[in-house]
Amino acid sequence: MTFSVTVLGSNSAIPTLQRNPSAHLLNANERLFLIDCAEGTQLQLRRYKIHFQRIKHIFISHLHGDHFYGLIGFLTSLHLLGRKDDMHLYAHPELQQIIDLQLAASRTTLRYSLIFHPLLSDRKELILEAERLKVFTFPLLHSIPTNGFLFLEQHSSTQRNRQPRSYAYCADTIYTEDIIQYFRGVDLLYHEATFLHNMVDSAHEKFHSTALEAATIAVKAGVKRLLIGHFSARYDELQPLLDEARAVFPDTELAEDGKKIDICLSENNPL
Amino acid sequence: MTFSVTVLGSNSAIPTLQRNPSAHLLNANERLFLIDCAEGTQLQLRRYKIHFQRIKHIFISHLHGDHFYGLIGFLTSLHLLGRKDDMHLYAHPELQQIIDLQLAASRTTLRYSLIFHPLLSDRKELILEAERLKVFTFPLLHSIPTNGFLFLEQHSSTQRNRQPRSYAYCADTIYTEDIIQYFRGVDLLYHEATFLHNMVDSAHEKFHSTALEAATIAVKAGVKRLLIGHFSARYDELQPLLDEARAVFPDTELAEDGKKIDICLSENNPL
Repeated sequence: MTFSVTVLGSNSAIPTLQRNPSAHLLNANERLFLIDCAEGTQLQLRRYKIHFQRIKHIFISHLHGDHFYGLIGFLTSLHLLGRKDDMHLYAHPELQQIIDLQLAASRTTLRYSLIFHPLLSDRKELILEAERLKVFTFPLLHSIPTNGFLFLEQHSSTQRNRQPRSYAYCADTIYTEDIIQYFRGVDLLYHEATFLHNMVDSAHEKFHSTALEAATIAVKAGVKRLLIGHFSARYDELQPLLDEARAVFPDTELAEDGKKIDICLSENNPL
Repeated sequence: MTFSVTVLGSNSAIPTLQRNPSAHLLNANERLFLIDCAEGTQLQLRRYKIHFQRIKHIFISHLHGDHFYGLIGFLTSLHLLGRKDDMHLYAHPELQQIIDLQLAASRTTLRYSLIFHPLLSDRKELILEAERLKVFTFPLLHSIPTNGFLFLEQHSSTQRNRQPRSYAYCADTIYTEDIIQYFRGVDLLYHEATFLHNMVDSAHEKFHSTALEAATIAVKAGVKRLLIGHFSARYDELQPLLDEARAVFPDTELAEDGKKIDICLSENNPL
Protein backbone atom coordinates (compact mmCIF):
# COMPACT_ATOMS: atom_id res chain seq x y z
CA MET A 1 0.00 0.00 0.00
CA THR A 2 2.54 2.51 -1.21
CA PHE A 3 1.97 6.23 -0.88
CA SER A 4 5.25 7.89 -1.77
CA VAL A 5 6.70 10.96 -3.46
CA THR A 6 9.90 10.75 -5.51
CA VAL A 7 11.69 14.01 -6.21
CA LEU A 8 12.79 14.13 -9.87
CA GLY A 9 14.07 17.70 -9.76
CA SER A 10 14.79 20.25 -7.05
CA ASN A 11 16.38 23.25 -8.76
CA SER A 12 14.69 26.46 -9.82
CA ALA A 13 14.99 28.15 -13.19
CA ILE A 14 17.80 26.20 -14.86
CA PRO A 15 19.03 22.61 -14.97
CA THR A 16 22.48 22.00 -13.51
CA LEU A 17 24.57 18.83 -13.27
CA GLN A 18 23.73 18.70 -9.56
CA ARG A 19 19.98 19.38 -9.65
CA ASN A 20 17.30 19.11 -12.33
CA PRO A 21 14.38 21.55 -12.28
CA SER A 22 10.92 20.70 -10.96
CA ALA A 23 9.18 17.36 -11.27
CA HIS A 24 7.70 15.02 -8.65
CA LEU A 25 6.30 11.52 -8.97
CA LEU A 26 3.50 10.39 -6.67
CA ASN A 27 2.95 6.67 -6.28
CA ALA A 28 -0.49 6.21 -4.72
CA ASN A 29 -1.18 2.52 -4.33
CA GLU A 30 0.89 1.71 -7.44
CA ARG A 31 -0.85 4.33 -9.55
CA LEU A 32 1.71 6.86 -10.81
CA PHE A 33 1.09 10.60 -11.10
CA LEU A 34 3.61 13.03 -12.57
CA ILE A 35 3.60 16.57 -11.20
CA ASP A 36 5.47 19.12 -13.33
CA CYS A 37 7.88 18.02 -16.03
CA ALA A 38 11.00 20.13 -16.48
CA GLU A 39 13.49 19.49 -19.25
CA GLY A 40 15.27 16.21 -18.53
CA THR A 41 12.42 14.66 -16.53
CA GLN A 42 12.20 11.63 -18.83
CA LEU A 43 15.86 10.92 -18.13
CA GLN A 44 15.26 11.31 -14.39
CA LEU A 45 12.44 8.76 -14.64
CA ARG A 46 14.89 6.37 -16.32
CA ARG A 47 17.63 7.15 -13.80
CA TYR A 48 15.36 6.31 -10.86
CA LYS A 49 13.96 3.22 -12.60
CA ILE A 50 10.35 4.35 -12.68
CA HIS A 51 8.15 2.50 -15.18
CA PHE A 52 6.97 5.67 -16.81
CA GLN A 53 4.47 4.07 -19.19
CA ARG A 54 2.42 3.47 -16.03
CA ILE A 55 1.91 7.21 -15.58
CA LYS A 56 -1.63 8.07 -16.69
CA HIS A 57 -2.03 11.56 -15.26
CA ILE A 58 0.26 14.57 -15.54
CA PHE A 59 -0.27 17.83 -13.64
CA ILE A 60 1.55 21.00 -14.70
CA SER A 61 1.49 23.79 -12.12
CA HIS A 62 2.28 26.69 -14.47
CA LEU A 63 3.93 27.57 -17.73
CA HIS A 64 7.37 28.69 -16.63
CA GLY A 65 9.83 26.56 -18.56
CA ASP A 66 11.44 24.95 -15.52
CA HIS A 67 8.10 23.23 -14.89
CA PHE A 68 7.13 22.00 -18.34
CA TYR A 69 9.89 22.10 -20.98
CA GLY A 70 10.38 18.34 -20.64
CA LEU A 71 6.74 17.55 -21.32
CA ILE A 72 6.72 17.50 -25.13
CA GLY A 73 9.77 15.21 -25.19
CA PHE A 74 8.23 12.90 -22.61
CA LEU A 75 4.92 12.68 -24.51
CA THR A 76 6.78 12.01 -27.77
CA SER A 77 8.99 9.34 -26.21
CA LEU A 78 5.91 7.54 -24.85
CA HIS A 79 4.55 7.58 -28.40
CA LEU A 80 7.80 6.29 -29.93
CA LEU A 81 7.94 3.53 -27.33
CA GLY A 82 4.52 2.30 -28.41
CA ARG A 83 2.14 3.65 -25.79
CA LYS A 84 -1.52 2.87 -26.31
CA ASP A 85 -3.07 3.97 -22.99
CA ASP A 86 -4.78 7.32 -22.62
CA MET A 87 -2.81 10.10 -20.96
CA HIS A 88 -4.61 12.82 -18.99
CA LEU A 89 -2.94 16.20 -18.83
CA TYR A 90 -4.01 18.94 -16.40
CA ALA A 91 -2.53 22.33 -17.22
CA HIS A 92 -3.22 25.92 -18.14
CA PRO A 93 -4.94 26.26 -21.54
CA GLU A 94 -2.00 27.67 -23.53
CA LEU A 95 -0.14 24.38 -23.14
CA GLN A 96 -2.48 22.59 -25.51
CA GLN A 97 -1.55 24.95 -28.35
CA ILE A 98 2.17 24.62 -27.55
CA ILE A 99 1.93 20.83 -27.77
CA ASP A 100 -0.25 20.82 -30.89
CA LEU A 101 2.10 23.16 -32.73
CA GLN A 102 5.14 21.01 -31.98
CA LEU A 103 3.40 17.78 -32.98
CA ALA A 104 2.23 19.44 -36.21
CA ALA A 105 5.76 20.68 -37.03
CA SER A 106 7.07 17.11 -36.83
CA ARG A 107 3.94 15.69 -38.50
CA THR A 108 3.41 13.45 -35.51
CA THR A 109 0.07 11.93 -34.56
CA LEU A 110 0.35 10.36 -31.14
CA ARG A 111 -0.53 6.66 -31.02
CA TYR A 112 -2.46 7.28 -27.81
CA SER A 113 -5.12 9.76 -26.72
CA LEU A 114 -3.83 12.83 -24.94
CA ILE A 115 -6.78 14.18 -23.01
CA PHE A 116 -6.34 17.80 -22.02
CA HIS A 117 -8.03 19.15 -18.89
CA PRO A 118 -7.56 22.92 -18.76
CA LEU A 119 -7.00 24.54 -15.37
CA LEU A 120 -9.42 27.45 -15.46
CA SER A 121 -10.71 28.08 -11.98
CA ASP A 122 -9.24 30.39 -9.36
CA ARG A 123 -10.78 28.40 -6.49
CA LYS A 124 -10.20 24.96 -5.02
CA GLU A 125 -11.65 22.45 -7.41
CA LEU A 126 -11.89 18.67 -7.65
CA ILE A 127 -10.26 17.75 -10.94
CA LEU A 128 -9.89 13.99 -10.70
CA GLU A 129 -11.60 11.24 -8.79
CA ALA A 130 -9.96 7.97 -9.71
CA GLU A 131 -10.72 4.70 -8.01
CA ARG A 132 -8.80 5.41 -4.84
CA LEU A 133 -7.66 9.01 -5.08
CA LYS A 134 -9.13 12.49 -5.24
CA VAL A 135 -7.09 15.30 -6.75
CA PHE A 136 -7.89 18.93 -6.11
CA THR A 137 -6.28 21.99 -7.63
CA PHE A 138 -6.03 25.38 -5.94
CA PRO A 139 -4.55 28.78 -6.81
CA LEU A 140 -1.11 29.94 -5.74
CA LEU A 141 0.23 33.48 -6.00
CA HIS A 142 3.01 33.79 -8.56
CA SER A 143 4.00 36.06 -11.47
CA ILE A 144 1.84 34.04 -13.88
CA PRO A 145 -1.25 31.87 -13.19
CA THR A 146 -0.03 29.00 -11.04
CA ASN A 147 -1.82 26.10 -9.40
CA GLY A 148 -1.10 23.76 -6.54
CA PHE A 149 -2.43 20.23 -6.26
CA LEU A 150 -3.78 18.19 -3.35
CA PHE A 151 -3.77 14.40 -3.59
CA LEU A 152 -6.08 12.71 -1.12
CA GLU A 153 -6.29 8.97 -0.77
CA GLN A 154 -9.75 7.38 -0.76
CA HIS A 155 -10.32 4.17 1.16
CA SER A 156 -12.67 1.36 0.41
CA SER A 157 -15.22 0.28 3.01
CA THR A 158 -12.87 -2.45 4.27
CA GLN A 159 -10.21 0.17 5.03
CA ARG A 160 -12.27 2.47 7.21
CA ASN A 161 -10.04 2.05 10.23
CA ARG A 162 -7.14 3.64 8.33
CA GLN A 163 -6.73 7.33 7.82
CA PRO A 164 -6.48 8.42 4.19
CA ARG A 165 -3.04 9.76 3.27
CA SER A 166 -2.49 13.08 1.57
CA TYR A 167 0.12 15.10 -0.31
CA ALA A 168 -0.03 18.78 -1.29
CA TYR A 169 2.24 20.26 -3.95
CA CYS A 170 2.76 24.01 -3.75
CA ALA A 171 4.88 24.99 -6.72
CA ASP A 172 6.09 28.53 -7.23
CA THR A 173 4.36 30.99 -4.94
CA ILE A 174 5.05 34.06 -2.92
CA TYR A 175 4.34 33.72 0.82
CA THR A 176 0.60 33.91 1.28
CA GLU A 177 -1.52 32.56 4.11
CA ASP A 178 -4.49 32.47 1.74
CA ILE A 179 -3.36 29.03 0.60
CA ILE A 180 -3.35 27.38 4.03
CA GLN A 181 -7.04 26.55 3.79
CA TYR A 182 -6.40 24.25 0.85
CA PHE A 183 -4.15 21.72 2.55
CA ARG A 184 -4.66 21.97 6.30
CA GLY A 185 -3.29 18.94 8.14
CA VAL A 186 -1.86 17.05 5.15
CA ASP A 187 0.65 14.28 5.74
CA LEU A 188 3.21 15.87 3.46
CA LEU A 189 3.38 19.41 2.13
CA TYR A 190 5.80 20.34 -0.62
CA HIS A 191 6.33 24.10 -0.59
CA GLU A 192 8.89 25.96 -2.66
CA ALA A 193 11.79 27.59 -0.82
CA THR A 194 13.80 29.27 -3.54
CA PHE A 195 15.88 31.47 -1.21
CA LEU A 196 17.18 31.87 2.31
CA HIS A 197 15.31 34.51 4.28
CA ASN A 198 18.20 36.97 4.02
CA MET A 199 17.05 37.32 0.41
CA VAL A 200 13.38 37.82 1.22
CA ASP A 201 13.14 41.00 -0.82
CA SER A 202 14.52 39.30 -3.88
CA ALA A 203 12.17 36.37 -3.26
CA HIS A 204 9.12 38.60 -3.11
CA GLU A 205 10.15 40.60 -6.14
CA LYS A 206 10.13 37.32 -8.09
CA PHE A 207 6.98 35.97 -6.38
CA HIS A 208 8.96 33.27 -4.61
CA SER A 209 9.27 32.16 -0.97
CA THR A 210 12.08 31.64 1.50
CA ALA A 211 12.79 28.52 3.55
CA LEU A 212 11.60 30.32 6.68
CA GLU A 213 8.35 31.24 4.96
CA ALA A 214 7.73 27.70 3.72
CA ALA A 215 8.18 26.46 7.28
CA THR A 216 5.81 29.13 8.58
CA ILE A 217 3.14 27.95 6.15
CA ALA A 218 3.71 24.37 7.36
CA VAL A 219 3.21 25.45 10.99
CA LYS A 220 0.11 27.49 10.26
CA ALA A 221 -1.44 24.75 8.15
CA GLY A 222 -0.73 22.12 10.80
CA VAL A 223 0.82 19.69 8.31
CA LYS A 224 2.73 16.63 9.48
CA ARG A 225 5.84 16.92 7.33
CA LEU A 226 7.32 19.53 5.04
CA LEU A 227 9.39 19.04 1.91
CA ILE A 228 11.17 22.14 0.58
CA GLY A 229 12.62 22.54 -2.90
CA HIS A 230 12.92 24.69 -6.04
CA PHE A 231 16.27 25.94 -4.78
CA SER A 232 18.06 28.79 -6.48
CA ALA A 233 21.11 27.62 -8.40
CA ARG A 234 23.11 30.05 -6.23
CA TYR A 235 23.04 27.46 -3.41
CA ASP A 236 25.59 24.69 -3.81
CA GLU A 237 25.05 23.69 -0.20
CA LEU A 238 21.44 23.19 0.88
CA GLN A 239 22.02 22.64 4.60
CA PRO A 240 21.46 26.34 5.48
CA LEU A 241 18.03 26.20 3.84
CA LEU A 242 17.17 23.07 5.80
CA ASP A 243 18.44 24.58 9.06
CA GLU A 244 16.42 27.74 8.51
CA ALA A 245 13.22 25.79 7.90
CA ARG A 246 13.78 23.31 10.75
CA ALA A 247 14.22 26.15 13.23
CA VAL A 248 10.54 26.92 12.59
CA PHE A 249 9.20 23.50 11.57
CA PRO A 250 11.41 20.57 12.67
CA ASP A 251 9.83 17.91 10.44
CA THR A 252 11.27 19.41 7.28
CA GLU A 253 13.20 17.59 4.59
CA LEU A 254 15.11 18.78 1.56
CA ALA A 255 13.90 17.87 -1.88
CA GLU A 256 16.91 16.17 -3.47
CA ASP A 257 16.89 14.54 -6.89
CA GLY A 258 16.09 10.87 -6.47
CA LYS A 259 14.90 11.13 -2.86
CA LYS A 260 11.80 9.05 -2.14
CA ILE A 261 9.54 9.95 0.76
CA ASP A 262 7.17 7.28 2.02
CA ILE A 263 3.99 8.25 3.78
CA CYS A 264 2.98 5.41 6.06
CA LEU A 265 -0.49 4.28 6.97
CA SER A 266 -1.71 5.39 10.34
CA GLU A 267 -4.89 4.98 12.37
CA ASN A 268 -4.99 8.40 13.93
CA ASN A 269 -4.33 10.72 11.04
CA PRO A 270 -5.99 14.06 11.82
CA LEU A 271 -7.26 14.69 8.27
CA MET B 1 43.77 27.61 -34.50
CA THR B 2 41.15 25.15 -33.38
CA PHE B 3 38.74 23.53 -35.80
CA SER B 4 36.94 20.83 -33.86
CA VAL B 5 33.58 19.11 -33.51
CA THR B 6 32.30 17.97 -30.11
CA VAL B 7 29.49 15.41 -30.12
CA LEU B 8 26.83 16.40 -27.56
CA GLY B 9 24.40 13.65 -28.49
CA SER B 10 24.50 10.52 -30.63
CA ASN B 11 21.18 8.76 -30.13
CA SER B 12 18.15 8.87 -32.38
CA ALA B 13 14.56 9.52 -31.33
CA ILE B 14 14.79 9.33 -27.52
CA PRO B 15 17.26 10.31 -24.82
CA THR B 16 18.73 7.43 -22.80
CA LEU B 17 21.14 7.42 -19.89
CA GLN B 18 23.86 6.23 -22.28
CA ARG B 19 23.29 8.59 -25.21
CA ASN B 20 21.58 11.95 -25.62
CA PRO B 21 19.88 12.78 -28.93
CA SER B 22 21.40 15.00 -31.61
CA ALA B 23 23.54 18.06 -31.00
CA HIS B 24 27.05 18.96 -32.19
CA LEU B 25 29.29 21.85 -31.30
CA LEU B 26 31.71 23.26 -33.87
CA ASN B 27 34.63 25.31 -32.61
CA ALA B 28 36.04 27.20 -35.58
CA ASN B 29 38.94 29.33 -34.42
CA GLU B 30 37.32 29.84 -31.00
CA ARG B 31 33.96 30.79 -32.47
CA LEU B 32 31.29 28.36 -31.27
CA PHE B 33 28.43 27.08 -33.43
CA LEU B 34 25.68 24.80 -32.13
CA ILE B 35 24.14 22.35 -34.59
CA ASP B 36 20.85 20.82 -33.47
CA CYS B 37 19.72 21.02 -29.87
CA ALA B 38 17.92 17.97 -28.47
CA GLU B 39 16.42 17.92 -24.99
CA GLY B 40 19.26 17.94 -22.47
CA THR B 41 21.75 19.73 -24.73
CA GLN B 42 22.28 22.55 -22.21
CA LEU B 43 23.31 19.96 -19.62
CA GLN B 44 25.65 18.32 -22.12
CA LEU B 45 27.28 21.72 -22.72
CA ARG B 46 27.81 22.02 -18.96
CA ARG B 47 29.04 18.42 -18.70
CA TYR B 48 31.70 18.98 -21.35
CA LYS B 49 32.66 22.39 -19.93
CA ILE B 50 31.79 24.42 -23.00
CA HIS B 51 31.33 28.15 -22.38
CA PHE B 52 27.92 28.21 -23.95
CA GLN B 53 27.38 31.96 -23.73
CA ARG B 54 30.02 32.15 -26.47
CA ILE B 55 27.68 30.42 -28.92
CA LYS B 56 26.28 33.04 -31.28
CA HIS B 57 24.81 30.87 -34.02
CA ILE B 58 22.49 27.88 -33.76
CA PHE B 59 21.51 25.69 -36.72
CA ILE B 60 18.53 23.35 -36.48
CA SER B 61 18.38 20.71 -39.22
CA HIS B 62 14.67 19.88 -38.92
CA LEU B 63 11.75 19.89 -36.54
CA HIS B 64 11.74 16.35 -35.23
CA GLY B 65 11.90 16.63 -31.46
CA ASP B 66 15.18 14.78 -31.06
CA HIS B 67 16.83 17.69 -32.89
CA PHE B 68 15.27 20.72 -31.21
CA TYR B 69 13.35 20.02 -27.96
CA GLY B 70 16.25 21.39 -25.93
CA LEU B 71 16.32 24.70 -27.76
CA ILE B 72 13.66 26.63 -25.82
CA GLY B 73 15.26 25.64 -22.51
CA PHE B 74 18.70 26.61 -23.73
CA LEU B 75 17.51 30.00 -25.01
CA THR B 76 15.70 30.65 -21.73
CA SER B 77 18.69 29.64 -19.62
CA LEU B 78 20.92 32.04 -21.57
CA HIS B 79 18.39 34.76 -20.77
CA LEU B 80 18.24 33.88 -17.07
CA LEU B 81 22.03 33.84 -16.91
CA GLY B 82 22.14 37.43 -18.17
CA ARG B 83 23.01 37.10 -21.84
CA LYS B 84 23.17 40.36 -23.78
CA ASP B 85 24.74 39.26 -27.08
CA ASP B 86 22.62 38.60 -30.15
CA MET B 87 21.82 34.99 -30.98
CA HIS B 88 21.29 33.93 -34.59
CA LEU B 89 19.01 30.98 -35.17
CA TYR B 90 18.77 29.17 -38.51
CA ALA B 91 15.80 26.82 -38.75
CA HIS B 92 12.60 26.00 -40.57
CA PRO B 93 9.97 28.72 -40.24
CA GLU B 94 7.57 26.93 -37.86
CA LEU B 95 10.18 27.06 -35.11
CA GLN B 96 9.76 30.79 -34.69
CA GLN B 97 6.10 30.37 -33.76
CA ILE B 98 6.91 27.51 -31.38
CA ILE B 99 9.44 29.68 -29.56
CA ASP B 100 7.24 32.79 -29.52
CA LEU B 101 4.28 30.87 -28.09
CA GLN B 102 6.34 29.43 -25.25
CA LEU B 103 7.92 32.77 -24.37
CA ALA B 104 4.47 34.37 -24.39
CA ALA B 105 3.02 31.67 -22.10
CA SER B 106 5.69 32.43 -19.49
CA ARG B 107 5.51 36.18 -20.16
CA THR B 108 9.22 36.18 -20.93
CA THR B 109 10.95 38.84 -23.01
CA LEU B 110 14.48 37.71 -23.75
CA ARG B 111 17.19 40.12 -22.59
CA TYR B 112 19.01 39.55 -25.88
CA SER B 113 18.00 39.67 -29.53
CA LEU B 114 17.08 36.34 -31.04
CA ILE B 115 17.48 36.80 -34.78
CA PHE B 116 15.62 34.18 -36.76
CA HIS B 117 16.85 33.14 -40.20
CA PRO B 118 14.28 30.87 -41.82
CA LEU B 119 15.54 27.98 -43.95
CA LEU B 120 13.41 28.29 -47.04
CA SER B 121 15.40 27.15 -50.02
CA ASP B 122 15.63 23.65 -51.46
CA ARG B 123 19.04 24.31 -52.99
CA LYS B 124 22.53 24.87 -51.63
CA GLU B 125 22.62 28.34 -50.20
CA LEU B 126 25.11 30.52 -48.36
CA ILE B 127 23.43 31.47 -45.08
CA LEU B 128 26.28 32.96 -43.09
CA GLU B 129 29.56 34.59 -43.89
CA ALA B 130 31.24 35.52 -40.65
CA GLU B 131 34.75 36.85 -40.42
CA ARG B 132 36.49 33.56 -41.00
CA LEU B 133 33.77 31.07 -41.86
CA LYS B 134 31.19 30.46 -44.55
CA VAL B 135 28.14 28.35 -43.74
CA PHE B 136 26.01 26.79 -46.44
CA THR B 137 22.78 24.87 -46.07
CA PHE B 138 21.59 22.17 -48.44
CA PRO B 139 18.57 19.86 -48.65
CA LEU B 140 18.51 16.30 -47.34
CA LEU B 141 15.80 13.71 -48.02
CA HIS B 142 13.79 12.87 -44.93
CA SER B 143 10.14 12.49 -43.88
CA ILE B 144 9.87 16.24 -43.19
CA PRO B 145 11.88 19.16 -44.64
CA THR B 146 15.44 18.64 -43.43
CA ASN B 147 18.65 20.55 -44.09
CA GLY B 148 22.31 19.77 -43.85
CA PHE B 149 25.02 22.34 -43.17
CA LEU B 150 28.51 22.87 -44.57
CA PHE B 151 31.02 24.88 -42.55
CA LEU B 152 33.94 26.12 -44.59
CA GLU B 153 36.85 27.97 -43.05
CA GLN B 154 37.97 31.22 -44.70
CA HIS B 155 41.57 32.27 -44.46
CA SER B 156 43.01 35.72 -44.33
CA SER B 157 45.61 36.80 -46.91
CA THR B 158 48.46 35.84 -44.54
CA GLN B 159 47.14 32.29 -44.35
CA ARG B 160 47.01 31.51 -48.04
CA ASN B 161 49.46 28.65 -47.80
CA ARG B 162 47.03 26.72 -45.59
CA GLN B 163 44.06 24.83 -46.90
CA PRO B 164 40.72 25.91 -45.42
CA ARG B 165 39.15 23.27 -43.18
CA SER B 166 35.60 22.04 -43.58
CA TYR B 167 32.84 20.13 -41.81
CA ALA B 168 29.55 18.89 -43.25
CA TYR B 169 26.64 17.86 -41.04
CA CYS B 170 24.11 15.51 -42.63
CA ALA B 171 21.33 15.02 -40.14
CA ASP B 172 18.47 12.65 -40.79
CA THR B 173 18.35 11.50 -44.39
CA ILE B 174 17.59 8.47 -46.46
CA TYR B 175 20.47 7.27 -48.66
CA THR B 176 20.65 9.60 -51.64
CA GLU B 177 23.59 10.36 -53.90
CA ASP B 178 21.99 13.70 -54.75
CA ILE B 179 23.60 15.20 -51.65
CA ILE B 180 27.20 14.30 -52.56
CA GLN B 181 27.60 17.45 -54.63
CA TYR B 182 27.16 19.62 -51.54
CA PHE B 183 30.17 18.43 -49.55
CA ARG B 184 32.63 16.80 -51.94
CA GLY B 185 36.08 16.40 -50.39
CA VAL B 186 35.30 17.84 -46.93
CA ASP B 187 37.69 17.15 -44.07
CA LEU B 188 34.97 15.68 -41.90
CA LEU B 189 31.53 14.44 -42.89
CA TYR B 190 28.93 13.65 -40.25
CA HIS B 191 26.29 11.37 -41.75
CA GLU B 192 23.53 9.67 -39.85
CA ALA B 193 23.67 5.87 -39.54
CA THR B 194 20.58 4.97 -37.58
CA PHE B 195 20.66 1.25 -38.39
CA LEU B 196 22.87 -1.64 -39.45
CA HIS B 197 22.39 -2.63 -43.08
CA ASN B 198 20.48 -5.77 -42.13
CA MET B 199 17.67 -3.32 -41.30
CA VAL B 200 17.89 -1.39 -44.56
CA ASP B 201 14.18 -1.80 -45.30
CA SER B 202 13.24 -0.39 -41.92
CA ALA B 203 15.74 2.43 -42.43
CA HIS B 204 14.25 3.41 -45.77
CA GLU B 205 10.71 3.20 -44.51
CA LYS B 206 11.66 5.83 -41.91
CA PHE B 207 13.81 7.86 -44.32
CA HIS B 208 16.97 6.94 -42.46
CA SER B 209 20.32 5.45 -43.52
CA THR B 210 22.45 2.48 -42.52
CA ALA B 211 26.12 2.51 -41.49
CA LEU B 212 27.05 0.90 -44.80
CA GLU B 213 25.16 3.60 -46.69
CA ALA B 214 26.78 6.44 -44.74
CA ALA B 215 30.19 4.96 -45.60
CA THR B 216 29.20 4.65 -49.25
CA ILE B 217 28.31 8.35 -49.33
CA ALA B 218 31.70 9.12 -47.76
CA VAL B 219 33.50 7.14 -50.47
CA LYS B 220 31.53 8.68 -53.33
CA ALA B 221 31.99 12.21 -51.99
CA GLY B 222 35.72 11.68 -51.50
CA VAL B 223 35.68 13.04 -47.96
CA LYS B 224 38.69 12.66 -45.65
CA ARG B 225 36.97 11.36 -42.53
CA LEU B 226 33.51 10.14 -41.65
CA LEU B 227 31.66 10.48 -38.35
CA ILE B 228 28.53 8.34 -37.95
CA GLY B 229 25.80 8.87 -35.39
CA HIS B 230 22.05 9.14 -34.67
CA PHE B 231 22.07 5.51 -33.58
CA SER B 232 18.86 3.66 -32.87
CA ALA B 233 18.35 3.04 -29.14
CA ARG B 234 18.17 -0.67 -30.04
CA TYR B 235 21.99 -0.73 -30.23
CA ASP B 236 23.68 -0.95 -26.85
CA GLU B 237 26.93 -1.86 -28.56
CA LEU B 238 28.03 0.40 -31.40
CA GLN B 239 31.05 -1.59 -32.60
CA PRO B 240 29.03 -3.48 -35.27
CA LEU B 241 27.97 -0.15 -36.80
CA LEU B 242 31.57 1.02 -36.83
CA ASP B 243 32.80 -2.25 -38.32
CA GLU B 244 30.17 -2.13 -41.04
CA ALA B 245 31.10 1.43 -42.03
CA ARG B 246 34.87 0.84 -41.83
CA ALA B 247 34.63 -2.13 -44.19
CA VAL B 248 33.61 0.41 -46.85
CA PHE B 249 35.31 3.57 -45.58
CA PRO B 250 38.18 2.92 -43.12
CA ASP B 251 38.48 6.49 -41.79
CA THR B 252 35.19 6.29 -39.92
CA GLU B 253 34.59 7.19 -36.29
CA LEU B 254 31.61 6.75 -34.01
CA ALA B 255 29.82 9.79 -32.67
CA GLU B 256 29.93 9.30 -28.89
CA ASP B 257 28.65 11.82 -26.38
CA GLY B 258 31.55 14.02 -25.33
CA LYS B 259 33.91 12.94 -28.12
CA LYS B 260 35.89 15.81 -29.65
CA ILE B 261 37.30 15.49 -33.14
CA ASP B 262 40.06 17.90 -34.11
CA ILE B 263 40.61 18.77 -37.73
CA CYS B 264 44.23 19.76 -38.18
CA LEU B 265 45.65 22.33 -40.54
CA SER B 266 47.22 20.96 -43.67
CA GLU B 267 48.86 22.38 -46.76
CA ASN B 268 47.48 19.96 -49.30
CA ASN B 269 43.80 19.80 -48.52
CA PRO B 270 41.97 18.93 -51.75
CA LEU B 271 39.06 21.33 -51.13
